Order: sequence, then structure tokens, then C-alpha cells
Amino acid sequence: MSMVTAADVMAWCRRLAKYTEEPGYTTRTFLSPPMRQVHHDLCGWLRSLGLEPWLDAAGNLRCEYPGASPGARSLLIGSHLDTVPRAGAFDGILGVVLAIALVENLQGRPLSYAIEILGFSEEEGVRFGVPFIGSRAYLGTLGTALLERADSTGVTVSQCIANFGLLPTTAPQLVGEPAGYLEFHIEQGPVLESIAAPLGIVTAIAGQSRYTLCFEGHANHAGTTPMALRQDALVGAAEFIVAVERHACGTDGLVATVGQIQAEPGAGNIIPGRVTLSLDVRHASDAIREAAVQALLENAESIAHARGLQVTSTLRTNQTAAPMDARLTAMLSEAVGATGHSQPHLVSGAGHDAMILAPHIPSAMLFLRSPGGLSHHPDEAVLEEDVQAALDAGAHFLELYTHA
Amino acid sequence: MSMVTAADVMAWCRRLAKYTEEPGYTTRTFLSPPMRQVHHDLCGWLRSLGLEPWLDAAGNLRCEYPGASPGARSLLIGSHLDTVPRAGAFDGILGVVLAIALVENLQGRPLSYAIEILGFSEEEGVRFGVPFIGSRAYLGTLGTALLERADSTGVTVSQCIANFGLLPTTAPQLVGEPAGYLEFHIEQGPVLESIAAPLGIVTAIAGQSRYTLCFEGHANHAGTTPMALRQDALVGAAEFIVAVERHACGTDGLVATVGQIQAEPGAGNIIPGRVTLSLDVRHASDAIREAAVQALLENAESIAHARGLQVTSTLRTNQTAAPMDARLTAMLSEAVGATGHSQPHLVSGAGHDAMILAPHIPSAMLFLRSPGGLSHHPDEAVLEEDVQAALDAGAHFLELYTHA
Repeated sequence: MSMVTAADVMAWCRRLAKYTEEPGYTTRTFLSPPMRQVHHDLCGWLRSLGLEPWLDAAGNLRCEYPGASPGARSLLIGSHLDTVPRAGAFDGILGVVLAIALVENLQGRPLSYAIEILGFSEEEGVRFGVPFIGSRAYLGTLGTALLERADSTGVTVSQCIANFGLLPTTAPQLVGEPAGYLEFHIEQGPVLESIAAPLGIVTAIAGQSRYTLCFEGHANHAGTTPMALRQDALVGAAEFIVAVERHACGTDGLVATVGQIQAEPGAGNIIPGRVTLSLDVRHASDAIREAAVQALLENAESIAHARGLQVTSTLRTNQTAAPMDARLTAMLSEAVGATGHSQPHLVSGAGHDAMILAPHIPSAMLFLRSPGGLSHHPDEAVLEEDVQAALDAGAHFLELYTHA
Repeated sequence: MSMVTAADVMAWCRRLAKYTEEPGYTTRTFLSPPMRQVHHDLCGWLRSLGLEPWLDAAGNLRCEYPGASPGARSLLIGSHLDTVPRAGAFDGILGVVLAIALVENLQGRPLSYAIEILGFSEEEGVRFGVPFIGSRAYLGTLGTALLERADSTGVTVSQCIANFGLLPTTAPQLVGEPAGYLEFHIEQGPVLESIAAPLGIVTAIAGQSRYTLCFEGHANHAGTTPMALRQDALVGAAEFIVAVERHACGTDGLVATVGQIQAEPGAGNIIPGRVTLSLDVRHASDAIREAAVQALLENAESIAHARGLQVTSTLRTNQTAAPMDARLTAMLSEAVGATGHSQPHLVSGAGHDAMILAPHIPSAMLFLRSPGGLSHHPDEAVLEEDVQAALDAGAHFLELYTHA
């Protein structure tokens, strides 16, 4: 029996990327028609290995590889099957394909524990504006409010599940008591590339604060209002944006971003009277993140005060950091070391299914280098040698792994 | 015969403000149906004074008050009859009503010169995106391209003129050789209010440079891209916006404004890869304005260079300053002094019909204080005492005025 190679894994990803809602791109939201084709192909592969895949009530693709003794607890391995609009071929699905490849490469040899392969139905939050529907359903924490949330066409999560031929439910989907979770994912950032490392061990998924800030001044004629008599909301906002960068650069591991800005009334010859902007602050330490947010909001206040502006801030998201399990992370580091590659540790600035599972199940996460740091883009890529390193590290991990 | 008072002038303005395309507001664009009602009422007033108003080929309302000797050259007095959408009751039309009031208050007494009262049909540039149609037509400089320009419904300037029952033409409309132009207008800014002066003598209409700048960096994930690896177009743009203010504050009389800004892709969790913004720079001295623009564009370059961004700038408008005539301005200053009020001199940061006429006809302009600096707004106002001061100053001016 031949082993599944990195080239095979990448070919699988590229093949599944053709299942899309938008021809010419890869766009595959929660339980959209092309998701059925993905299920069809992956189930075919799993059945060819003698396994019995199934879909749970939230459309998660699940499949157990039994352990040596009946009823052995499972190590979960997986990631998500959905994509953003016009996505690449690897975000999410690479972690599912690698899970199946690792199981196939066991060539039927049972381990002391069972493995559950997981393809989460939803992680990106595109269709319903709320991410992690798959992993939340897996834990039984979807909740009625989320099930009744509607997409832009008025279809609810619940109807969407029913339309796909599944039974909507908020009941926990766990089968047995999983003992660990392992997720492979592309980094979606430039860090591993910048240090020439194929793999990185995730120590935590950063906590995240998101705010909307509104600076209010006074809209006036740009020609007739002397500089000294202005209350220009945009100059105040600009001073704040520069301060956000300066603050983040001065705090190790902190990232802070203003990604959205709107100036009103928005005419070239009118001094902006109101500016609304987004603020996104992330760090692995909740305390550092919260201190940064407080400092930045105070800074906004003092900039506004000095300029005769008003500023208000509205909290949009306050998500605590999710540390990975220390024992599993050490095992993963050892497994990467066994491949001969360096074992850089890094914090994930992006959310992942592991963030949802980590508070409930000891979790570990392995990043693969992202060429150009690119993701959520048709040109998103992985290097074959990195995928091979992930396959090798994964195989070592399966040998090292024991339940706690 | 009783004199026209400030209260009468304001009542006329408020009455004419009811002629609108949008009920409940004052919106009266070039040759729109309510303009006919304005013409009707003003022509009625002028005929009651024994005068013969007429409409020229561009819909300018014109009326001669003959001088003592036949064929005497004219002093033009006027402003514009059109408004921005949801305008106030005084911008433009106050200058026309004051012209008629000044003529009525002569009580038929002829002066050594003729007066031509002018109500320009278009100054605001709302309907066709190009301002000063009325005054350009008056000078015969409309041009074929402008006549063929279409509004948002596809109607051209030429069709619009024909639809109103007039004969479109680019031929000069001048009757005789006007010897001077006097315009009364609300300040539309806060300067006179800030120095508690009812009137201000305009020394020049500022020249104006408008640019679009585009900062380009690299859009990246706000969570996964460390601060040191970013090319954030918005932080670069923000640094520039702060620098624009600093530069303008450091140069006497300079105003510089960023009124529009757009960040792409414009998501809270994505570092902006491209920012487009407007730059508006004005000064009474073309040399100072041009030097400021050059310094600001160089500053944009150096900010971009230091951050690994690209910046491009596109010139949108380059309008030279229009100095008012020194002799007429001195007369106007003397006339204001004769009313017992202070005679502050100021530069108009906004464009006016006088800017179009000044290169061809010696021109002078008197500003009336704008409460709150407000204009282009339903709450735009004038103080009755200021209108009275303008009437008094105007009457003195007519006595002082002689052709050069």
C-alpha cells in the first residue's frame, strides 16, 4: 500500500476547490450546494478506507477510525470545509484532507486511541455573519438565537440545515468524550515565511477586542473656515490612527488595526464633521489586550478633548484568548522536531475552530507557512515541502500521542 | 416714498425661498420650474419701479437703471438666483434683492452712470457639476462643451435653456461695456462673527487646488500580520492628514482640507491596502498656494517612502486667485466706514460670480456676517442689523462710485 504524499494532499485540495457557488472562483458557504459535492468525494475516500463517515445535525462531516480496544476515547483531527467568497484552495480544507491522509497512512494499524476525523460545516461566518457554526454545534452550544438567525435572503440557520436534508437541533453532538483536538491550518500570515520555517506550533489564539469609534466635530466650508476655527473630525481621527499604530508597535505581540473609516459629509470641499472608524486589537494575553484597549480609548478622548471634538466608542466584540493545551503543544513541538525542522512557537492572530474547542477539549494547532502571507484570496498557496513536513510531523504526533 | 429697509429685504428673500423643487426645503437649480416664479416676482417688483427687466439667453435676469446721460456705462450689481439642494434663504439671492433695493432707494434719481441689476441663473454647479453657468454666459465664455454637458437625466445645458423657452447661444451677452461689478453675499464662514463685524470687504477670492491622492500598501489580515510586517495604507494616509493640518496652520491665510477618504477593502479585520483621499488647498496668493501644494505632495511622497507605500496624486482643479479691483475695494471700504462700522478686509475662500467677472470687469465684493458661519443649510441666516448696514454701505458706495 502506497503512502499518501504531500502532492496527493494538495491535489485533493485543488480538486475540492472546484466545488463552488461562483464559477471560476472558490466560494463555498455553509451547506451550500457545492458542499454536497465535497461531502460526496470525501465520503467516497473514507469509505475506500473501510470507514463509515456521517453528517451530524449541523452538517459536520465526521468519521471514526477505531482504536485498538472498543470504546477507546478519541483524538479529534480536523478543520473546516466552508470558505470565504473567492477563497483559496487550502484554508480549512487542508486540515481535513491532512486528517484523512494521516489516517490512511496508518494503513489500518489501530492505535491505543480512536481518531475522529472532523470536517466542520462552517467556520468563516460569511453566510450568517456569525462564525464557528460547525464547531459550536459540535459542542452543543449553538443556541436557539443562532439557529433562528437569518441570512441576507431571510433563510435561517435552522431552515438552511433542514433544506440540506438534516435535522436542526441544538442538542450536543459529541459522541463519547473526545480527549484531544488537533488542527492543521495555513498560517494566513507572514511570520513563518519571514523566519523561513515550514511549520509553526500555535501556543494560543489571540483574544480580540473590536470597537467602533465615532469622532464628532463640526462640518464647515473648506474654503471659508480658517484653520484656527475648525473642528475637523477627520484630523482628530487621523491623529488617533497614527497613535494606534505607535501604541501597538510599542507592545510586544500586540496588533491593532483601523480597517474601516467613513468621513461625513464626505465632500472634498467640506470639513468632515463626523468620522466613524473600526478598531481591532489582539493579543495572546487578555490583560495586555485590555490594558491596550483602555490606553487607546483614553488616547482618543484626549485627542478629541484637545481639538474640541466629541468621541464615543461602542464595543463590538470582546473575545478572550484561547491558550492551546500545554501537554499537546509540547508533543506537537517534539513531533515537528523529529522531522528535522525548527519548532517556532507563535500566537494565532486569527480565530480558528480550535479556539471554540480549546476551552472544552485539550487542543493543539499546527500552522503551515503561507507564501506571501496570503489567504482569503485565489492565489493562496502552500509549498509541497511544507505539506510533507506537516504529514511527517502529524505521523510522529500520532505515535507520541497518549490521552492525559 | 418710503425706503426699502433691511426687514423688507429679508422678507423678500424668505418669500422667494418658498419657490423650490423640493417642498419644505429651498432647492432651486438652474432653470428649474420654481426659477420661473422667482423671475415673475422680481420682474413684478422691477416693473413697479418703471424698469424693464429681461432674461438673456442663459436665463440671467437683467435690468438696466439708466444713468443721467443716455449711453452711460453701467455698474453691475448682483449675485445668483440658484441654490444648492436644501439651501438657506440668503445665499446668492440676497445680493440680487439688495441690488434692487438700492435702486429703489434711489427713488428715480439718476446717477452719472447706469446700473445693471443682475440675477445670475446658475452659480452653484449642482445640476451640471460645473458652476458659474450664469456669469460665464454673461461674459460669452460658456463654450460648446459646456452647452453640451448633460445633467443626471441626460438633459444638456443647451436643451435645458431651450426647454425654458430661451435661445441657447454661446454669443456674448454683454450690453455695452460694463465699468464695474459689485456683489453682496453672505460670508458663509465664521470670520466676521469671530471679530464681531457685520460687514467685510473682500480683497480677493482665493485660488484653489484640488487633488486626489491614492496611498497603496498591502491588504493583509489584521490578526495574523505583526505590526513590523505591515504596509498599512491608512496609517500612511493618517500621517499625511495630520501633516496637512500642521502645514496649513503654519502658513498665514492658507486653508487645506481632506474632506473625503476611502479605505479599501474596508473591513474591520483587514489592514487597508489602498486609501484614496481628497486634498483641497486655498490661498489668496497663487504662489503661496502652489508652494504649499508642492510641499504637501512631497510630504506625501516621503511618508509613503518611509512606510513602503506608493502614493500617486491627480490634479482635479487648479483655479488661480481672483483679486478684487483695488480702486473699487477702497471705495467700498470708505462706504462701509461711512456707516460707522469697522472695515475688516478678508479673502473669500469660496468661489463667487465675482471670481468669474473680476478678470474682465473691475469688481468689488461685500460680505455680510454669517451667524454660526452657517450656509448651504436651511438654518442659514443673516442679522437684520447687518442687512441694514449693507444697505447703508451700498447707498454710500453708489454716491462715491465713478467710472475709472
